Amino acid sequence: MKIILDMMGGDNAPLSNLEGAAQAVKEYGVEIIGLGDEAACRKAAAEKNISLDGIQLVNCTENIEMCDEPARAVRTKKDSSIVVGLNMLKEGKGDAFVSAGSTGALHVGASLIVRTLRGVKRPALATIIPAKNKAYMLLDSGANVECRPEMLAAFAVMGSCYMARVEGRKNPTVALANNGAEESKGTPVLREAHQLLKTTPGINFVGNIEPRDVPNGDVDVVVCDGFTGNVILKLTEGVAKMILGMLKEMFMANVGSKLAYLLLRSGVADLKKKMDSEEYGGAPFLGARQPVIKAHGSSKAKAIKNAIRQAKICVDNDLCGTMQAALDELAAQSAGE
Amino acid sequence: MKIILDMMGGDNAPLSNLEGAAQAVKEYGVEIIGLGDEAACRKAAAEKNISLDGIQLVNCTENIEMCDEPARAVRTKKDSSIVVGLNMLKEGKGDAFVSAGSTGALHVGASLIVRTLRGVKRPALATIIPAKNKAYMLLDSGANVECRPEMLAAFAVMGSCYMARVEGRKNPTVALANNGAEESKGTPVLREAHQLLKTTPGINFVGNIEPRDVPNGDVDVVVCDGFTGNVILKLTEGVAKMILGMLKEMFMANVGSKLAYLLLRSGVADLKKKMDSEEYGGAPFLGARQPVIKAHGSSKAKAIKNAIRQAKICVDNDLCGTMQAALDELAAQSAGE
Repeated sequence: MKIILDMMGGDNAPLSNLEGAAQAVKEYGVEIIGLGDEAACRKAAAEKNISLDGIQLVNCTENIEMCDEPARAVRTKKDSSIVVGLNMLKEGKGDAFVSAGSTGALHVGASLIVRTLRGVKRPALATIIPAKNKAYMLLDSGANVECRPEMLAAFAVMGSCYMARVEGRKNPTVALANNGAEESKGTPVLREAHQLLKTTPGINFVGNIEPRDVPNGDVDVVVCDGFTGNVILKLTEGVAKMILGMLKEMFMANVGSKLAYLLLRSGVADLKKKMDSEEYGGAPFLGARQPVIKAHGSSKAKAIKNAIRQAKICVDNDLCGTMQAALDELAAQSAGE
Repeated sequence: MKIILDMMGGDNAPLSNLEGAAQAVKEYGVEIIGLGDEAACRKAAAEKNISLDGIQLVNCTENIEMCDEPARAVRTKKDSSIVVGLNMLKEGKGDAFVSAGSTGALHVGASLIVRTLRGVKRPALATIIPAKNKAYMLLDSGANVECRPEMLAAFAVMGSCYMARVEGRKNPTVALANNGAEESKGTPVLREAHQLLKTTPGINFVGNIEPRDVPNGDVDVVVCDGFTGNVILKLTEGVAKMILGMLKEMFMANVGSKLAYLLLRSGVADLKKKMDSEEYGGAPFLGARQPVIKAHGSSKAKAIKNAIRQAKICVDNDLCGTMQAALDELAAQSAGE
């Protein structure tokens, strides 16, 4: 299996990308096609003694920056790692594409170059978020700011497919993020979406979920528009970071608290691991015709490696094919109504 | 000063409401008009030995439940504590109204009975939320699901007034909750609101704030529609609760961790206090012509007492009058454009 990896995307590129790639080659037996500034990659690999076995480097002369306007960047920077990588994926030169680069450019590029599955207008960014009982998939977690009810129904179908196929959850539950449990709650779009989800075939819809209950992790999939998803994803990270920061201050306060930290070390490590999004690696763009995985912008080697693992599972399970079958069933049911 | 208090609202009514009222009479020297089931109140007070000095009880025969449809409940339950209380406020029989009851009924009742300030379509629920550097005011935190840009500008003006007058913040900063720092981010409504806020007189607008930065508490006022505000408020509570729950498990794990807890006790207490919304008491409906304060549904005595303190400060500072002057200036500027 060949995974195409953007060597230039992310805050720690290319070093973390190289390290993650080398670990993935070793652990998962995949081949990597690494796109970016070849000279810089070879230099970093030599300096840090990272093996390039199983990694084929392809030089790209351009780079899409986080500040670039996504649609314009995809149109004009033809030799950037993102555009080259998505074209190689489309042409069958690799089985999946992984990047820690610009979410906007990946979203536009996935839509325009790789194209979308039948029944999907725009791919959704689907992030797995740690929670109390079990991690849940949040989609759309930031790609499509505004969404029609039909888009939300497609997200529900795709998220269920993913959690069943990739995460092995049985009959995954799906909830609609809303400001109250009752069907009458929320904006007109959400009220319509609620009704649509109730009759969507092949999903286990359990109703609305209120924001205060989202971190419990009682459901497998939380569906929302990309604006709300961005708030949920980033605020969860922000509040967790704030409290973990307060904890750190608490432990550093005096000799007694430092001693307490020593006694709690393994517990604190467990807590951090439970809250660690790096364990999940990346967020797939569900609805693209081939697997496109967005790794967190701050990814270190572990997150890159896990994003590659995620890509491998998507390919192994023919996730896109399965999802297309589920979406076709949804379309057939809608047409038959 | 006379504060009208809903004795029936909240999960712990009437006991916590009575206790909070008695404490407020003692600490702040206010008089309380307590509305609700008079017999039940007298019984609870006698049983728990709560002094009714300074508390005048007025019997109400009806009660608005959390499950009642708000507009219908306000129209039909004329002898409920919320409707009677808002009418007494309007008629000048008291200076402010405090309730831990149905947010929806209070919102509708404040609009229809007390009415709104000139330039305000609907009052906004304004909640003060604990954060890393300093607590911030979030409005609308749940009353108006959808908001036009002009409503968001009015929220900014009112939130600034409140933070300056009641919380004593100098030249309070205001930010618009959005999914990116750039002006071009967000929905069309948010992009329009951003432009409007840039030219709104009398406020210190500092641009968009991303959800991940909200818990830092770097700004004094965060403006958003009530749907987004509900997500921010409830998710902040939910994530904090999840992590504090994990901490508790960590402390209870074994003998060493229990010992660690003893060493950290004061630090943990500080952390809890910092995250404790009860300290702030309640959320005012900004934009109502007279002070209407919503206390949290789960309020205990301390939260009720603090909501009464908040009501007192609003009255002492003629908050509604100050706010009307600021709104009139905004309207004059808009008309002069």
